[in-house]
Amino acid sequence: MPYYIGDVIKDEKRLIARTPEKFRETGIDVRIDARVEEVDSRAGAVRLADGTSLPYDVLVLGTGTTPLMPGIPGEDREGVFTLKKLDDAVRIKARLREVPCRKALIVGAGFIGMEMAEALRNLGIETSILHRGELPVNRWDPEFGKVILEELRIHQVEFVTGTETKAVAEGKSHGLSLATNHGDVEADLILMAVGVRPDAVLASQMGLPLGKTGAIQVNFSQMTPREGVYAVGDCAESFHRVSGRWVNIPLGDIANKQGRVAGRNIGGKAMVFPGIVGAQSFKVFDLEAAATGLDEREAALAGFHPASALIWGNAIAGSMPSNTKLGLKLIADRATGKLLGAQAVGRVGAVSRINTLSAALWAGMTLDDVGWLDLAYAPPVGPAWDPIHVAAQTLQRKL
Amino acid sequence: MPYYIGDVIKDEKRLIARTPEKFRETGIDVRIDARVEEVDSRAGAVRLADGTSLPYDVLVLGTGTTPLMPGIPGEDREGVFTLKKLDDAVRIKARLREVPCRKALIVGAGFIGMEMAEALRNLGIETSILHRGELPVNRWDPEFGKVILEELRIHQVEFVTGTETKAVAEGKSHGLSLATNHGDVEADLILMAVGVRPDAVLASQMGLPLGKTGAIQVNFSQMTPREGVYAVGDCAESFHRVSGRWVNIPLGDIANKQGRVAGRNIGGKAMVFPGIVGAQSFKVFDLEAAATGLDEREAALAGFHPASALIWGNAIAGSMPSNTKLGLKLIADRATGKLLGAQAVGRVGAVSRINTLSAALWAGMTLDDVGWLDLAYAPPVGPAWDPIHVAAQTLQRKL
Repeated sequence: MPYYIGDVIKDEKRLIARTPEKFRETGIDVRIDARVEEVDSRAGAVRLADGTSLPYDVLVLGTGTTPLMPGIPGEDREGVFTLKKLDDAVRIKARLREVPCRKALIVGAGFIGMEMAEALRNLGIETSILHRGELPVNRWDPEFGKVILEELRIHQVEFVTGTETKAVAEGKSHGLSLATNHGDVEADLILMAVGVRPDAVLASQMGLPLGKTGAIQVNFSQMTPREGVYAVGDCAESFHRVSGRWVNIPLGDIANKQGRVAGRNIGGKAMVFPGIVGAQSFKVFDLEAAATGLDEREAALAGFHPASALIWGNAIAGSMPSNTKLGLKLIADRATGKLLGAQAVGRVGAVSRINTLSAALWAGMTLDDVGWLDLAYAPPVGPAWDPIHVAAQTLQRKL
Repeated sequence: MPYYIGDVIKDEKRLIARTPEKFRETGIDVRIDARVEEVDSRAGAVRLADGTSLPYDVLVLGTGTTPLMPGIPGEDREGVFTLKKLDDAVRIKARLREVPCRKALIVGAGFIGMEMAEALRNLGIETSILHRGELPVNRWDPEFGKVILEELRIHQVEFVTGTETKAVAEGKSHGLSLATNHGDVEADLILMAVGVRPDAVLASQMGLPLGKTGAIQVNFSQMTPREGVYAVGDCAESFHRVSGRWVNIPLGDIANKQGRVAGRNIGGKAMVFPGIVGAQSFKVFDLEAAATGLDEREAALAGFHPASALIWGNAIAGSMPSNTKLGLKLIADRATGKLLGAQAVGRVGAVSRINTLSAALWAGMTLDDVGWLDLAYAPPVGPAWDPIHVAAQTLQRKL
């Protein structure tokens, strides 16, 4: 009987608590809250925290990521959270129910910071984002960062730049007090959202090689260099089709695909994971932001000669009443004209454009192709010359 | 001084009436309402309806399409319209202002029929679509046709199937009466929207070769077989990259691109129109419909061995409150696994998917590529396994 060892948490509706039972019917032994302490890969067995030893023929590591913490005194206080697992969400929701929560602090301005700012504001909670840098989500061009910042401001999210956190202590008017280089700030809830790193503790202990990314090295079948040991999801590397390098981009869709590839190979059917192009997106209030491929820095590191163009166009035809602005940036290689990456921001249509450009990156298209792509034109869904065309032609003139 | 001869109409705001003047400042002689009666290509001159003869070195034909009429008695009555030119829209709007318009009939169920049904319903006018066939927009799979039909019904548009029109006469309770095989129907306005054909009258008279489509044959520089004579837009053919044939798809974005290619070549800069993949879309009330590439019939005609799969998925993650269903159909070749076409219908996300798949068609991707495309995943903008992935993998299993 294959084992599935996870830390899946029983949620309020006991939906997930039923999972082990459901799986057992199909011959799979799912154990929740079962921490693996050690893998003895010579003997082919895992040792659980309760001392149980489970033998295996095939082992799949899906250990995910560990949220980073600032490493400051008091960061383990009650009311200070990270948001990585379902368990974390359940605990945050419990806190919001149990403590009158009027004010929240978010440390960090990545995807989690953006999404949680929206969620907390929608509950009417006064919310501040404390950020090391000057603009949110630094994967996007500063011009787009400013648009995202404005969206936060419109929704009364305070954004504090150049912030270093020092310590968490008990508050006076609120439950907690966060000491920073700008002084003390009080809040009822603090979310640490400063990033994640691949959880490769078991892999390291087994002597499996990690990449420069700190994630577990795998091949196109998701197998590690050790026969019969696979790694999938946020703890594993993926082949980036644009940079030609192995990267770690912890996203749910990539994890899903890798899991499928490992499963098929383990089951005796040949399947290969053909890699990624770095497509990603988030929504914050009424704004979509999406990106794909490489930014200029990554492109230069990969040995390309990046040039870029950033344009503002119409998400739908300019003559339509609900027309909204769409910002689109393209990055291409001066030497070959190859598209290398794209970023977009807008109320509608940003993800749509980035997905089309992700297909273009997948195929290795040049700007010449991108500038002529045949897209489904109709005034309510796009302009005759789509921002994709305009951006590609603008950048082509710069090369 | 280059000439620009069009039939652009002065609209209410006199915006377009200023066009000739604006162009003259830049050295271009634009003449509106200037009908070209004949082209003498040996002498290199066009003869206008008013007798003027204008010499040319280079001639661009942009004669567009002519709307088809059913060819029934009374179809030229006041209150019976086609919708092709700005002039037509201005005349329809004038009719709506001048005559108390309570009821409208639309003959035909293509893009124009759909869009005008929405426009007329939004004005509170009782609207019926009379259609020869059983379902609207027959480019889409019947399953999607039914969804579109339901959208029309929700918005109180009557849809009458298997209709043959016989004659238009004066009405009793409304201004007009349309005789059909189902009996007489009265209305204050009748829109004939039964299709268009390329307007190749001048081209034929010049002895230029037309394709099987009835549109003017051009090369990749938009030049006809006659040196110095170009054709662009709805009157010209385009190279279809999937079927490898020259087709006539009268759409504004294609016309725009072809105009640019002709202009650059005439101006002495080399530019090539790389063709189309047949991307198209329309919106009707709250529904998006989009399609690209070939349908099964076209694929078989082109010598492919089509197989198809139609799936219903989520436009955004199933866990999101505003989740809506998205229908996606893919067509691929059994022999090569190559993607050949796609169709989609949904409240959101249909055009987005079709544009991504249009990029895939442009690049000649197989289903294997499409099934792994890296798309920008986030729950508010798409599921982890996008309908694109699900449809591609479903179809792959059928091949």
